[in-house]
Amino acid sequence: EATQRGRVMSSRAKVLTIDTMNPTVKKVEYAVRGPIVQRAVELERELSEGIKKPFAEVIKANIGDAHAMGQQPITFFRQVLALCSYPELLNDSTFPEDAKSRARRILQSCGGNSMGSYSASQGIDSVRQDVARYIERRDGGVPCDPDNIYLTTGASDGIVTMLKLLVCGEGATRTGVMISIPQYPLYSAALAELGAVQINYYLNEEKCWSMDISELQRALDEARRHCNPRALCIINPGNPTGQVQSRQCIEDVIRFAAKERLFLMADEVYQDNVYADGCQFHSFKKVLFEMGPEYSNTVELVSFHSTSKCYMGECGFRGGYMEIINMDNEVKAQLTKLVSVRLCPPVPGQALMDLVVNPPQPGEPSYENFIKERTATLSALAEKAKLTEQVLNTVQGISCNPVQGAMYSFPRITISAKAVKEATDKGQQPDMFYCMKMLEETGICLVPGSGFGQKDGTYHFRMTILPPTDKLKILLNKVKEFHQKFTQQYT
Amino acid sequence: EATQRGRVMSSRAKVLTIDTMNPTVKKVEYAVRGPIVQRAVELERELSEGIKKPFAEVIKANIGDAHAMGQQPITFFRQVLALCSYPELLNDSTFPEDAKSRARRILQSCGGNSMGSYSASQGIDSVRQDVARYIERRDGGVPCDPDNIYLTTGASDGIVTMLKLLVCGEGATRTGVMISIPQYPLYSAALAELGAVQINYYLNEEKCWSMDISELQRALDEARRHCNPRALCIINPGNPTGQVQSRQCIEDVIRFAAKERLFLMADEVYQDNVYADGCQFHSFKKVLFEMGPEYSNTVELVSFHSTSKCYMGECGFRGGYMEIINMDNEVKAQLTKLVSVRLCPPVPGQALMDLVVNPPQPGEPSYENFIKERTATLSALAEKAKLTEQVLNTVQGISCNPVQGAMYSFPRITISAKAVKEATDKGQQPDMFYCMKMLEETGICLVPGSGFGQKDGTYHFRMTILPPTDKLKILLNKVKEFHQKFTQQYT
Repeated sequence: EATQRGRVMSSRAKVLTIDTMNPTVKKVEYAVRGPIVQRAVELERELSEGIKKPFAEVIKANIGDAHAMGQQPITFFRQVLALCSYPELLNDSTFPEDAKSRARRILQSCGGNSMGSYSASQGIDSVRQDVARYIERRDGGVPCDPDNIYLTTGASDGIVTMLKLLVCGEGATRTGVMISIPQYPLYSAALAELGAVQINYYLNEEKCWSMDISELQRALDEARRHCNPRALCIINPGNPTGQVQSRQCIEDVIRFAAKERLFLMADEVYQDNVYADGCQFHSFKKVLFEMGPEYSNTVELVSFHSTSKCYMGECGFRGGYMEIINMDNEVKAQLTKLVSVRLCPPVPGQALMDLVVNPPQPGEPSYENFIKERTATLSALAEKAKLTEQVLNTVQGISCNPVQGAMYSFPRITISAKAVKEATDKGQQPDMFYCMKMLEETGICLVPGSGFGQKDGTYHFRMTILPPTDKLKILLNKVKEFHQKFTQQYT
Repeated sequence: EATQRGRVMSSRAKVLTIDTMNPTVKKVEYAVRGPIVQRAVELERELSEGIKKPFAEVIKANIGDAHAMGQQPITFFRQVLALCSYPELLNDSTFPEDAKSRARRILQSCGGNSMGSYSASQGIDSVRQDVARYIERRDGGVPCDPDNIYLTTGASDGIVTMLKLLVCGEGATRTGVMISIPQYPLYSAALAELGAVQINYYLNEEKCWSMDISELQRALDEARRHCNPRALCIINPGNPTGQVQSRQCIEDVIRFAAKERLFLMADEVYQDNVYADGCQFHSFKKVLFEMGPEYSNTVELVSFHSTSKCYMGECGFRGGYMEIINMDNEVKAQLTKLVSVRLCPPVPGQALMDLVVNPPQPGEPSYENFIKERTATLSALAEKAKLTEQVLNTVQGISCNPVQGAMYSFPRITISAKAVKEATDKGQQPDMFYCMKMLEETGICLVPGSGFGQKDGTYHFRMTILPPTDKLKILLNKVKEFHQKFTQQYT
């Protein structure tokens, strides 16, 4: 009671308190950087202060942060960024000519030839043109208008902006947005903050996390009783689930969206992260256009991409773009106005996005090395995807779908009734209890499945496949040992 | 009626239309990149296509975009950024040692020694430490805890985040936020989007745009009848008004905020842009702490800074920070959680912020050149501030307060009744009519005062002082000629 009084007293003293702050912000959750990661940072500090732990280092397999896990940047990209940052280097003969010509082109598109100038709010014109040409090549010639490209501060920025446009109504007419479960928690966080209704549709774990139209229909029909469903979000390749959707599935989803009048949001930031034999990335846009004008002239679609994933892994630059298709012209004008308030996405991130969509071409001096570096990174990822699935599936009580794409495995774990009870007694989700214990005992930082959503009574964790192969092997063995020990302890 | 029907038809076809989109987004306005700037971009395109105009080039004096106006970046900053982008250059003997040691320090703070890694959501630790030391030096030793520093994506990002935390309640209990009129329209745009109540207090144009406590009191008392005023925003040095507040005024404002229980938001991004004799920048934090523990232990304050202004002008990198003072611990935890959803501010912008707060020191190889470049830029700005005021005040019907700081003049212009009528007939604000006409006739792009707010019946425009001196002289003469012609035409 004394603390309660103390809290009230301090509430009276401050203008802004937990009781008087924005209630929608309080509802926001983001497990990828949640309590378990905060504890990991503490443990790292304790280790650095010489405090003894049962492990020598913390391994953060919680976030798709490739360079932090030792992945090397693409040399060509960084050369161009250095040239753009300090154009004196254009006189340096050690830089290849193709890097210099890219840098010159980017600088010519910047006010005063400086990356320090604001760009147009929609992004630099020439970068948007390059993005459009990239999309056309990727999609076998389906036309792309640079005017439909918006550069963004990472994909997250674009996703939040689009959701913001879509939200309206109150009570039973409030906008509902369909998201997959498991999902990437940016979506749930943004919907909570915007006060929109989150509509969960479940991916089919038994069929390698595929999407079932019947499940979409079930979720939609139920939601229509209490809100106004207006958008459907898809992450392909999947985060946290690593599946790659078939062309047929995408076609079915588009048909469903058309029939049910849903705005499609396709999160395609892992479009170059496809590893499994027989799997291939199909963009929603390409499939939409192949379905003919009945669909391609009507279905509203936005697709997101980023510099942070794929073989680049340049998260820190916060580069990204979105392409809007069939958006109402008046809404588009509102979108352009809205993004202008924040002036522009970071220009170095725009420059990097330009390089991603317009890398060295055959015959250019940097081409061979670029291909070598890209191939090495993607091959290593493919190998690690396989390895992760294989090792995890050797553990009794862990079952892992193939990591077909993206950068994560999302295995299902068996947690005994005894462990569930102990977690519940502590007020913790059972998989949070499991992951927290793993962190304390092994130094491995994973994210509990509850942070992404999962079917009631099932438990998972998300683990990135990003550590270097040697380290990943050690990590997987530690996970195996921990799981065995944990199972033994709580049986 | 046919178009009305057409509109309804197309509304039926699309999921997302102007009638079904987020209504708060529709209320957002941002004049700095509004219709006049869109027209300026069109005119530039027409010129480049060879279409004849009464001018040879468009001069954009609408936005504080220094590099676009020819200001040169600081060599040291760009050297370090190049080294961080492409660390191979650390072996290049042409780079000075102090630039290399800064780059090494920044890279050591990045995961995997790469700017491509995500940083902590609050910003890189070592950068926050450098920011804290900078603030302590600036404020004569007032202590600063790095844990109170949040790096941001430009200052805009921090401002919007803080406003977001503050908004709650409905109807008569809805959060109200006091902003100056004239104001920088990011504030009104963010408040509109958040659905908060904008409370206008007027700056005193007759006394060089100073703040009167009696006017704050009037605005607050009126607002209390229909909302819950919780925060007071101040821009010092002023945007768009260019005034620098006295120490006494800041003390009075702090006392007012304490008495009325208002959260203070101090936008101090122009802290190094002070030109007028007898004027000096006083940070709100320093004054707060000099007022003693009665204030320094209680008044909640946030201060914003940025890499975009001052002598740096590095807008494109979107670097910035905010310092929070006396924030409730639970709210601070919510703030940290909220920023984690967007992962991190752009790392190159964080690196740049680090250099701004920790520039070359006496005795280091780059020191002299850094001082030379910084002084040249700030002296030129001081000269242009003076020149702008002087020339504008020679024009009958234009009256301009001294540009004591920041980067803008905000002169008052006389618009005749006849011109006001013609504008009103066209459905335009009279100063928009005036500025649009100036753009079409001279190619000069200014922002009408109505985009920032002004007393009813008064008209202004905002003009940056950033063009190079020679060009600025031509520009000012063109403004003069245009005003005379306009006045003649509409008398």
